[in-house]
Order: sequence, then C-alpha cells, then structure tokens
Amino acid sequence: MDAFSGMSSQEICEALDRERTAHAGFQALGLSLNMARGKPAAAQLDLSSPLLTMLQAREDCFSEDGTDCRNYGVIDGIPEAKRMMAHLLDDVPENVFVFGNASLSIMHDAIARCLHFGCLGSDPWSTLPQVRFLCPVPGYDRHFAILEHFGIEMLPVPMTDEGPDMDVVEQAVSSDATVKGIWCVPKYSNPTGVTYSNETVRRLAQMRCAADDFRIFWDNAYGVHHLYGPGKQDALLDIGVACREAGAPDRYLKFASTSKITFPGAGVAAMATSPANRDEAKRLCGAQMIGHDKLNQLRHARFLPDAQTIAAHMAAHADIMRPKFQLVEHILSEELGGLGIATWTDPRGGYFVSFDGLPGTAKRTVELAREAGVILTSAGATWPYGEDPRDANIRIAPTMPTLDELERALAVFCCCVRIAALEVMAERA
Amino acid sequence: MDAFSGMSSQEICEALDRERTAHAGFQALGLSLNMARGKPAAAQLDLSSPLLTMLQAREDCFSEDGTDCRNYGVIDGIPEAKRMMAHLLDDVPENVFVFGNASLSIMHDAIARCLHFGCLGSDPWSTLPQVRFLCPVPGYDRHFAILEHFGIEMLPVPMTDEGPDMDVVEQAVSSDATVKGIWCVPKYSNPTGVTYSNETVRRLAQMRCAADDFRIFWDNAYGVHHLYGPGKQDALLDIGVACREAGAPDRYLKFASTSKITFPGAGVAAMATSPANRDEAKRLCGAQMIGHDKLNQLRHARFLPDAQTIAAHMAAHADIMRPKFQLVEHILSEELGGLGIATWTDPRGGYFVSFDGLPGTAKRTVELAREAGVILTSAGATWPYGEDPRDANIRIAPTMPTLDELERALAVFCCCVRIAALEVMAERA
Repeated sequence: MDAFSGMSSQEICEALDRERTAHAGFQALGLSLNMARGKPAAAQLDLSSPLLTMLQAREDCFSEDGTDCRNYGVIDGIPEAKRMMAHLLDDVPENVFVFGNASLSIMHDAIARCLHFGCLGSDPWSTLPQVRFLCPVPGYDRHFAILEHFGIEMLPVPMTDEGPDMDVVEQAVSSDATVKGIWCVPKYSNPTGVTYSNETVRRLAQMRCAADDFRIFWDNAYGVHHLYGPGKQDALLDIGVACREAGAPDRYLKFASTSKITFPGAGVAAMATSPANRDEAKRLCGAQMIGHDKLNQLRHARFLPDAQTIAAHMAAHADIMRPKFQLVEHILSEELGGLGIATWTDPRGGYFVSFDGLPGTAKRTVELAREAGVILTSAGATWPYGEDPRDANIRIAPTMPTLDELERALAVFCCCVRIAALEVMAERA
Repeated sequence: MDAFSGMSSQEICEALDRERTAHAGFQALGLSLNMARGKPAAAQLDLSSPLLTMLQAREDCFSEDGTDCRNYGVIDGIPEAKRMMAHLLDDVPENVFVFGNASLSIMHDAIARCLHFGCLGSDPWSTLPQVRFLCPVPGYDRHFAILEHFGIEMLPVPMTDEGPDMDVVEQAVSSDATVKGIWCVPKYSNPTGVTYSNETVRRLAQMRCAADDFRIFWDNAYGVHHLYGPGKQDALLDIGVACREAGAPDRYLKFASTSKITFPGAGVAAMATSPANRDEAKRLCGAQMIGHDKLNQLRHARFLPDAQTIAAHMAAHADIMRPKFQLVEHILSEELGGLGIATWTDPRGGYFVSFDGLPGTAKRTVELAREAGVILTSAGATWPYGEDPRDANIRIAPTMPTLDELERALAVFCCCVRIAALEVMAERA
C-alpha cells in the first residue's frame, strides 16, 4: 500500500469506500473479540495450576517460623512471602510489606494514608489547599483513577524512550511544593513498554523537590515480565538504591504483585520502601487489618521459592505471549506500515503495545472497532481524566485473545485505523 | 470461701499472704498461657481442612456464572459467594458486597469513605469540625482503634442485657448532629455475649437522628456462632428489615466474615446494605480494587453451600468451644462465687466472657496474671481510648487454649483477682 499522504481527494474517497466495505464485511461476521485489558490468557493461568494443591493438609499450613497460617496475625507477611516478593521488588525481605491480592489497593491506601496523615510527620495532604501529581503519559488509567477519586490534580509529563521527560519533571517538582508525587511504571511501562534508563532513575532520586514529602509511586508491575530471553531483557536500576545514594532514602514506595505471574484474581501483592516509611505504614495499617491471607502467601512462596523458579515460570509465560506480540508487530507492519498514519511500539516485555494514529482518530477508531465486534481500551484512557489532547493514543492489549482471535481482531483494528485516518484526511481535503 | 466483705484488716492481711504464696507458686511453674484474643483453637481450624483441597484443577476454578475465578474482575463477589455471605448477613444475595479476608478492613474503609466522600451526597465527614460515634461499652477494641485512628470522638454508651442503653442512644443522636454513627456487635456481643432485643433493634431503626447521614455499623461477627443447640440459641432481628420498616432504609451497614467459621487468616468477608449504599460503595471502591480473591470465595462457597451446612459446621465448632466456656463458668463460680468481688457473663454464643472485678482492680489483675505467665487482654481495652473509668472490666477469651491449659490459666486468673481485690480492701481498711 502507498503512503496515504500523497492521495488526492478522489483517491481518499475511493479508499474510504473500499475500507468501509471491508468494515461492513467484518460487522457481518458477528465477532466478539477483546483487546481492552491486560489480562493473562487461560493458557497462562494454567501454568500456575500447581498452586491449587500446594497446601493439602493441616501440616502444610505452617510457615517456616512456625506460624499457623490458618489463624489470625502477622500484619506484614510471613517470612517466605517477604523473601519471594523481595525478588519481585529488587529489595531485601526486611523492607517488604506483604498485603492481599492487589497492588492497586496498596497504592490506593498508601495515597489515602498520605491524605489523612501526611508522611513521616508532614502535614496531611488533605489539609492542603492543593495537591498535584505528575503523570507520565501515555500511562495507566487505574493510577489516574485513584488520583481523580481523591481530587488530586494530575499534571501530564511526556514519556520519552528513557522514561518521563526529566527536564519537565525536575522543573515541576523544584518550583511547586504542591507537587507531591509521581506515578511510575518503570519497567516495560504501561502502555509504552519503555524501561526507565539509569539516568532517569538517578535524576528522579537526586532531583530537588520543593515538597519535602514528595513520593515516587514506583509500580514495578512488570519487573520480571520479559518477552524474550537473556540478552534481550531490559534491566532497571533500583529506585531504592538510587534514593539512598542521593540522600533521599524515604522518597520512594515500590509496588509489585504476582497478578500477572500466577492468578490475577488470587495472587499476592507487596510494597517495599525505606524502614521509616515501612514502620509508619505498619503502624497506620494496624487500624485497618490484622493480617492478609497467609495461606495464599504460603502457597505462592512454595510455588515460587527463588529467583530461578520465578525466571523459569516467567519464561513459560513469555513462550505463550511472545507470538502474540510478534503477531501484532507483523500485522501492523503489513497493514499500516509505510502509510504515514500510525506509529506503535514493539516492546521487549510487559503487557501492551502503545499505538498512535493520526491526531483526531483514536476515539473514532475505537468506535469503529466496537461496531465490528472488537473491544479496545477506551481512547483517552492512557491520559489523566480520560482526555488525550491529540486523540491519537490507543493501548493494545494482545494477551487475552488466542492467536487466532488476535489475528482477526487486528485485521479489524487496522481497517478501522485506516477508515479513521481517511475520514480525517477527507475533512481536511 | 466466705464473702470478702466481712473481713477484718487482720483477715485481709492473712488472706493476702496466702494468695501471694499461691501466686509465687504459679510463677515458679513458668507457665506461658494466653487468654487475650478471640482466636479459634487449632482443633477448630482442622474442621475446615476440606477447604484446602476444594479446588484441585483448572476445571474447578469457574464460578456458576462461568467466570474464570483465576483471572481479574468481579468487584463485588461471585454469585455463590454472595449467596453464602447472605446467610451470615441475614440478607438477600443482591445486597451483599463480598470483599477479602477481613471484615475489619471493610469497616475501616467504609469509615474512610464517609470521611472522604460523605454518604449519599452528604458532606464528607472530614470537612466537619467534629465527628462523634457512640460506642457501647464494654466493646471491641479494634472498633475503637479505627475511630481513634481517624480522630473521631468516641462517646461511651452503657450496655444493658438488651444491648446499648437506648435512652442514652436516643438522647445523643437526637440532640447532636455531630454524632454520625454507632458501633454494634448485635449478637453474642464482644465481650458481653448480649444479643440485642427486638425492641433495641427497632429503636435503633426508628430513632430520630439529628444527622441525616447517621450510620449503624452492624458488625454481626457472631451471627451463627452459637455455643448450644436449637432452643438455647439467641435470635436477632435483622437491622435491614427494621430500618426499611422505619423508613430509614440507608441507615445501616452490616458486616460479617468467615474468620471464626473457617480460617481467620484466610477467610471471606462481606458487607450488606441498602441498594443505594451498596451502589455508592461499589462506585467508590472501583478506584481501590479490581476484585478480591475469587478462588477463595469459590472454595468457601463450595465448602459451605447452604444454611444447613453452615449450621452443622458451627455445631462442630460449638462442640469444641462449649466445654471451655463451661469450664470458665465452673472455675469462676468455684473460686470467686459468693466472695462479692466479681461478676461475669455466661454467654450462649460468641467468643468471650466479660468479667468485672472490684473497681480499681482490672489493671492490677492483668499485671499479676502476666507475672505468672498468663496473658490477658489489656485492662481497659474494652473501652474507648483504652480507659475503663472504673478499671473493673476484663475480657476473657477462652477459645485458643486447650481445656487443660485453660484450667491452669483460670486458676492463676482467680488467684490474681483475689489478690487485687484484697489489696484494694487493705488500702481501704
């Protein structure tokens, strides 16, 4: 296919007719396909079936320190669960606080604690006239939803190939004490797939913040979620190490979970942070909980006892996921390459492909796809308040469908991208 | 033993000597016994061993509506878990919102939502100059801890044999719009064992509240936790029914969990409330969570599929617990009966015996017991801010020790009660 840019009005009309006929054909198929959420496929879930029978009798229910995991207690997690989550958090077990099944809840509650109680003696954020957060864009909609929920103003920061644009970040945090935090998905970022460079991590740790209680919310959701083998895996500098070296040891809160390692609905999540932050969280959480599900912690710790086991398990995930990401790259290149109407990422890990169409086409593309039975993440979802100012970005989540379903969904998607682009071009012509 | 009240100074001194000798004897035994927390005994936990193997393979992991419980989603619980929790909450499944393993967290978060967002359009409680809660005393220390955590002022209300003194409650809520809620453990109350009478429930539903958004926090933690069989079981009028009949359908939030039914550390908890409250909670919780552990919901729903199964399971618990409560009643009667220095409850369900010694003796009794190797709930814990103004109430939790351990612990306890009483009498004499 030729580049769309050189088309005459006549050619645009003809191309639009052809694509609309194709779209009508897709509609007639009555498809029902979903590329909306970063959910593991059933085949990936099957990899963790041994978890189901990891504990079979009362004798299996005791942690290595003798705790009866069936009963109450142990607010911050059993020792072997701390050790397992430390692998995912690039940290030592002592700094790990194990929670329930959702890192989203940990992050929500961490922000709620900042609002109610401040951080290590600072004023509660809810008592301040304004609180702002930096939000690298495109980013994760559920991060943005937490801030919107609590009325925290979101300031978008552009993502680069090395993470958030640090010139913008440094300018914002140094000049404005209402800027209290930043969301980061530092490895295989949602949705761009970018891993923060060492320089980005160091600058985040070293930057001068007008707010003493500035916090980096470090959602390392994809820390071990490589699509390729050693040699083609990204590495991330630990924010904890960088913050300690920079003399800002309490600046970060790291989060991780087994949601996309074992069972998303029944995993284990954890936070790692400085001893001061950890002790404050433990004290404040004492009013909220007695302890999380220790049996599930024990199941997980026995299923994934060390870094080697985790790596082997993630390689099995990658074997299922990699062909899907390769198919996305292949079909998008075939169907949209060289047209000058779209760019997209080809990540080495994580769960998403970030797609940019022509300005003003994302909402229309998602609408057209929906009409043809393909559900995509809402256009705008990757921006604060659901408002992508260019209406260009779409997050593609290729993991849940089978390869066959994905192929059909992508064919529909590419057709919709071309229609939306041609419509915009027709208006301009 | 004769009543202590008629003793001369000389007799008090002699008795004190005897008791202190006995206490020294207990100390020499090097005991390590715990009657502090309402924890099920290991034998009770063993009753739920089938839970461990309830789900064995991928085919077992689908809920009745076809949901793959391993994956993300279903914020308010799978259908069969709603049905199970509805039995515990005396409600219909539609009104049930299933959460994670801890009703304490649900209650904490419900209050946090009131503070941040108000209730059904009312002003957020955190924006008000003052918020107060009524706290029936003696009551549950973790309820009080949530309020203290959030800076909500606690107003004690005396418990009667029919629940909180409703004259006091009605007076407080009708005259003071800062009174926003009341804690209730309505059945086999912690620690008194009292079940609210129908009249108490109806008065709570019907009372005129100065605060439109007054909420009854109805922690039905012991709804099916009978110690005896049919005919000797308390019945509780449902607060939901009473509130609807009274024209105050949104006044209540009911809570329950399987913590003292299956595994305290790995159970399922839920809230039931009016459709309006439920929908608001569901909307606000959307920022905090994607869904709780549905595999554990499924395990529980299959283990306890109906009211009959639950009742049979609780009868097996009762068979283990009842001898312990009977032993408490027997030993306290033998060792303290007729002395005029103590009263205590003999509950028909729940987890506690509420004990009242002479004023000014509770702290001392707990201290003496600790010195002899017996850990009791801290004196004062049953009162807001840990301050029992009479220093008289002690919560006895007899479930965790074995019968043999309990017998020894109670012998120590009674000795300590007598010493503390004699010391107070010696001071007065």
